[in-house]
Amino acid sequence: MQLGIIGLGRMGANMARRLMSKGHECVVQDSHADAVAKMVSDGAVGAATLAELAAKMTKPRAVWLMVPAAVVDGVLDDLLAHLDPGDIIIDGGNSYYRDDIRRAKKLGDAGFHYVDCGTSGGIAGQDRGYCLMVGAEKPIFDHLRPIFSALSPGLGNEPRTPGRDGEPSDSEQGFLHCGPNGAGHFVKMIHNGIEYGMMAAFAEGFNILRHANIGKKDHAVDAETTPLREPEFYQYEFDLPEVAEVWRRGSVVGSWLLDLTAKALLADPELKHFGGKVSDSGEGRWTIQAAIDEAVPAHVLSAALYDRFSSRGEATFANQILSAMRHEFGGHAEKKD
Amino acid sequence: MQLGIIGLGRMGANMARRLMSKGHECVVQDSHADAVAKMVSDGAVGAATLAELAAKMTKPRAVWLMVPAAVVDGVLDDLLAHLDPGDIIIDGGNSYYRDDIRRAKKLGDAGFHYVDCGTSGGIAGQDRGYCLMVGAEKPIFDHLRPIFSALSPGLGNEPRTPGRDGEPSDSEQGFLHCGPNGAGHFVKMIHNGIEYGMMAAFAEGFNILRHANIGKKDHAVDAETTPLREPEFYQYEFDLPEVAEVWRRGSVVGSWLLDLTAKALLADPELKHFGGKVSDSGEGRWTIQAAIDEAVPAHVLSAALYDRFSSRGEATFANQILSAMRHEFGGHAEKKD
Amino acid sequence: MQLGIIGLGRMGANMARRLMSKGHECVVQDSHADAVAKMVSDGAVGAATLAELAAKMTKPRAVWLMVPAAVVDGVLDDLLAHLDPGDIIIDGGNSYYRDDIRRAKKLGDAGFHYVDCGTSGGIAGQDRGYCLMVGAEKPIFDHLRPIFSALSPGLGNEPRTPGRDGEPSDSEQGFLHCGPNGAGHFVKMIHNGIEYGMMAAFAEGFNILRHANIGKKDHAVDAETTPLREPEFYQYEFDLPEVAEVWRRGSVVGSWLLDLTAKALLADPELKHFGGKVSDSGEGRWTIQAAIDEAVPAHVLSAALYDRFSSRGEATFANQILSAMRHEFGGHAEKKD
Amino acid sequence: MQLGIIGLGRMGANMARRLMSKGHECVVQDSHADAVAKMVSDGAVGAATLAELAAKMTKPRAVWLMVPAAVVDGVLDDLLAHLDPGDIIIDGGNSYYRDDIRRAKKLGDAGFHYVDCGTSGGIAGQDRGYCLMVGAEKPIFDHLRPIFSALSPGLGNEPRTPGRDGEPSDSEQGFLHCGPNGAGHFVKMIHNGIEYGMMAAFAEGFNILRHANIGKKDHAVDAETTPLREPEFYQYEFDLPEVAEVWRRGSVVGSWLLDLTAKALLADPELKHFGGKVSDSGEGRWTIQAAIDEAVPAHVLSAALYDRFSSRGEATFANQILSAMRHEFGGHAEKKD
Repeated sequence: MQLGIIGLGRMGANMARRLMSKGHECVVQDSHADAVAKMVSDGAVGAATLAELAAKMTKPRAVWLMVPAAVVDGVLDDLLAHLDPGDIIIDGGNSYYRDDIRRAKKLGDAGFHYVDCGTSGGIAGQDRGYCLMVGAEKPIFDHLRPIFSALSPGLGNEPRTPGRDGEPSDSEQGFLHCGPNGAGHFVKMIHNGIEYGMMAAFAEGFNILRHANIGKKDHAVDAETTPLREPEFYQYEFDLPEVAEVWRRGSVVGSWLLDLTAKALLADPELKHFGGKVSDSGEGRWTIQAAIDEAVPAHVLSAALYDRFSSRGEATFANQILSAMRHEFGGHAEKKD
Repeated sequence: MQLGIIGLGRMGANMARRLMSKGHECVVQDSHADAVAKMVSDGAVGAATLAELAAKMTKPRAVWLMVPAAVVDGVLDDLLAHLDPGDIIIDGGNSYYRDDIRRAKKLGDAGFHYVDCGTSGGIAGQDRGYCLMVGAEKPIFDHLRPIFSALSPGLGNEPRTPGRDGEPSDSEQGFLHCGPNGAGHFVKMIHNGIEYGMMAAFAEGFNILRHANIGKKDHAVDAETTPLREPEFYQYEFDLPEVAEVWRRGSVVGSWLLDLTAKALLADPELKHFGGKVSDSGEGRWTIQAAIDEAVPAHVLSAALYDRFSSRGEATFANQILSAMRHEFGGHAEKKD
Repeated sequence: MQLGIIGLGRMGANMARRLMSKGHECVVQDSHADAVAKMVSDGAVGAATLAELAAKMTKPRAVWLMVPAAVVDGVLDDLLAHLDPGDIIIDGGNSYYRDDIRRAKKLGDAGFHYVDCGTSGGIAGQDRGYCLMVGAEKPIFDHLRPIFSALSPGLGNEPRTPGRDGEPSDSEQGFLHCGPNGAGHFVKMIHNGIEYGMMAAFAEGFNILRHANIGKKDHAVDAETTPLREPEFYQYEFDLPEVAEVWRRGSVVGSWLLDLTAKALLADPELKHFGGKVSDSGEGRWTIQAAIDEAVPAHVLSAALYDRFSSRGEATFANQILSAMRHEFGGHAEKKD
Repeated sequence: MQLGIIGLGRMGANMARRLMSKGHECVVQDSHADAVAKMVSDGAVGAATLAELAAKMTKPRAVWLMVPAAVVDGVLDDLLAHLDPGDIIIDGGNSYYRDDIRRAKKLGDAGFHYVDCGTSGGIAGQDRGYCLMVGAEKPIFDHLRPIFSALSPGLGNEPRTPGRDGEPSDSEQGFLHCGPNGAGHFVKMIHNGIEYGMMAAFAEGFNILRHANIGKKDHAVDAETTPLREPEFYQYEFDLPEVAEVWRRGSVVGSWLLDLTAKALLADPELKHFGGKVSDSGEGRWTIQAAIDEAVPAHVLSAALYDRFSSRGEATFANQILSAMRHEFGGHAEKKD
């Protein structure tokens, strides 16, 4: 079927290519003309403007936005002027689900249909397919099923979950109608919250492995340094790329994140190319906000988020407060490097 | 090759079967005679006693212990009386790596070889193979390679890590010489610490999803209950088995633990069969001990461990202290159910 | 000076009494007539209705609301109908500072002045005085200074902070103009967030002390129970009321919360009167929301909040997920009590 | 009574002075002759060597060690050669309680008495008095009561805990027989663990207050930066020295640590003199070790410890792992400053 795609960044462009490779028609637009030209050379119908995109599509139109969350509202306003009631707009980016609820109400009142689609898979998605979490009116979801089906991985080589047989469900193919508007990005938000937690679990674990040689090192002997009581137990020099690799086969922590970690460690065992300032892009924060509103404890997911804040130096003033207190009660001077 | 196996519980029996299916000879012993008999009917050489096991093996013997960590020292003492210098003992259970270091020293002084082997894979290992993390003298590890190779999954269907080609390394087949004695169980310990963290990430995430309908529920209106400010954002009834399923395909959180969660939720979406008292078996604790000795922050792994303690009621007195304080300063009475 | 007080609960009544004892006139109203009557017998001017309260006051009126956060907006709407431009309304409860900003805007547009005043001190405040954190236009704050001064503890017996001399500042007397509207409740919110953290620190510490006799207890010996490696180090039976008492004098953890804990433990060393379900009243949650919006790590304050959630059973489903996973990969059955 | 004191650092010297001011005789020794000379000029009996110290004391001697934990064993060995059975050695430093148990056994077997005394109060203790937590045989504790009584603050101006009347208990005067050997340092260890947690609660809270102006700042607009949704709620410029000061009077967070924070912030509101690398001196780590052995959850105390580790850069490799993962799945490049 035909799909309009606005936004041909890394994600949007890959998704267009995957759709076309499965026989769908893509009408594409981007603020960068060369991105459009490149996609046209790959087989897409190009549009220089939103008006042109609308004009080149048949009704009811289905238009997928793959733009940064911060500009969705602006693009929506521009786009709606060129669409007609009954048309469908899908936000496939990382919007906050509360914005989805607001937008769905506004668009619905004007006769349009709004779909929020959480999209996971990253830059590997063009080949592996994308995991799609959809919030929409059910008939609209059904109407778009060919698109979701083409974007998602399908059953693939994954073993089916015991207890599932017969015709594969949507979820087994990698897309799901999660509920009404907002539900798609809510599920994606929690997905990313979990992702932060899993990543932190690996990061902490590898950090402990890396320092397992601490017993070989000299320790300062002063009142500001805790002595290592049993250095004989910390004499290991672990080969982290090999550890990551062996865990990929048969272990309980086997996962795509581990696969990627094994790849990164193999290429650069010291990770010298990374300084360790870790961004967060919103979903982790919103996950915690949901946990708090629901009164659900989230020690692990919060800790993972805060560690990212700390990696960017945001704990500094708190640490200065601690040093100041220690100086006051104990006369402790801060250690210098 | 020939391997002695002591301990025919769930893990030991499965491992023996996997080895025999790959053409190795297993001489088996267990304190339960029927466990031995059953394994004999599957093709193993049975031994009623440790002495008999030793007598039925050719030198240098290699004997694998698959017994609870708490009884390893006792079995070792009994076993050594029947072995000869040059023989090899492998502890394949979940021993603390510090015990390995102690035992390896003691056995080495007596002319034996000790091997610590962290074994991951659980009850699925008989089919999937086991991930093996080995601490040993290198020549002993090499001598045992046929056993490790048979137990581990092999390359399988996993895509090779980009950058790896040519002859597959041990690690790519699922076993690894991690270093000298203790190194195997050290790596396994961290593996389990990470496992706790990943499990907690999923558990917290699904708990938040489950309570996403809190806006539909009545809230007590009193000074002891925080009002939910925006109930309109918590009106979702998520189908957790479906969410777990869709994440299995193409998402960033894809993992074996997710596969298992999807299976468990499909069978029992409310998890009514589980009360939520979660055991911990030592490795998580030792991981934190290592983190602290190394001065490595481990917010996530610790939180995962403490949540298990709390699940068993160990926070109760702390909570009573909090209630007592609140009563003192604010006259707050505890809410009853 | 004259102050209207609406809401004669524990806090409002105590504050009225303190103000009258310092020579101020209180015009009081409450939805319970007997609360008004009792305060009249203590010397207040009573009012049966908001209209009557307004009629009995001289302009510009200053009216202090001491009602639950959830009803502030309703009372405000009713009250404004009886007031005149230039009058002052003070919200002395635990409102969310974002509500203050909204209300101040609305009231300001109508010619009124709004003051948000975070009030700490609990039921002891009538005698000790209250710590007051005020958000207001500066001239309005100055106008109300006599009231703040009477409610707050004053310099008292506290030693002055080194570096402070001369005329005591407002802050040294226990009240502070924190900034424009919302600033008072923002500071109070963080105060309570810190309070949660301090309470949790004590609660965890006493819980560890209480279990320091674990080496004397029998441990189950099974694969689901981590053995205690060195029971000889956990043979202590600490007298918690005595420990709390000794820390009150000269130690680094000396604090009012410790004073209260010492009192509670003396009265009931086992805290049998408390079940350990700990409420939270909003400020702790809002503190975390602020931390996240500001990207400031708050591991401790979050953990303190989550522990309260867990105390009320909110972690249960997460724990069931963990048990289900353990059952899947390891065949582990949950331990029963 | 007479007390030998070995170690005239900041703590030991102050304690000697306090004892002498209360009429006790101090026989002092230190590896720095000038420290001894200075104390002699203050009225102490000086000793150049341990032998001389022993010779100048009457039996049964009581000798207080106030030396770094790392050298206690060495000093003990040297000292014992000059003492006689029946003599008493008190370790007043920050030893690990497990060392106390070991030493008490060894010394007891040789006819000596060992006392472990946790000492809190810092550099202010000379004036305020010290809080003393003692592990000892009860008769030995009773014998030393005059010393403990002189060092501790006494009843002072603290209000007595409601429920306590009559003759003040030891604990009300600031010293306590906590139990047999090790008990004193165990209680001190937990005291310090709590101290870490309280300090972190304040540090996080002030950090959130300090960043409450984030809404005034420009934010990068890119996919790596989470937008601040409601900047209008973060427009505050709080005066932290004033906030700390006002909390000192009547609030729930009133505490000695707050007094010290108020002092430090008044002297240097930006805390420019501190870089924020926070040492830890062992007790916090041991507290967590105890929590884990006892299976007591300690989210807050652990987080406080880990934040110190992170302040010293120990999370860096973990953060690099996170950045590497993000690069792999999302093509995310790390943000530079």
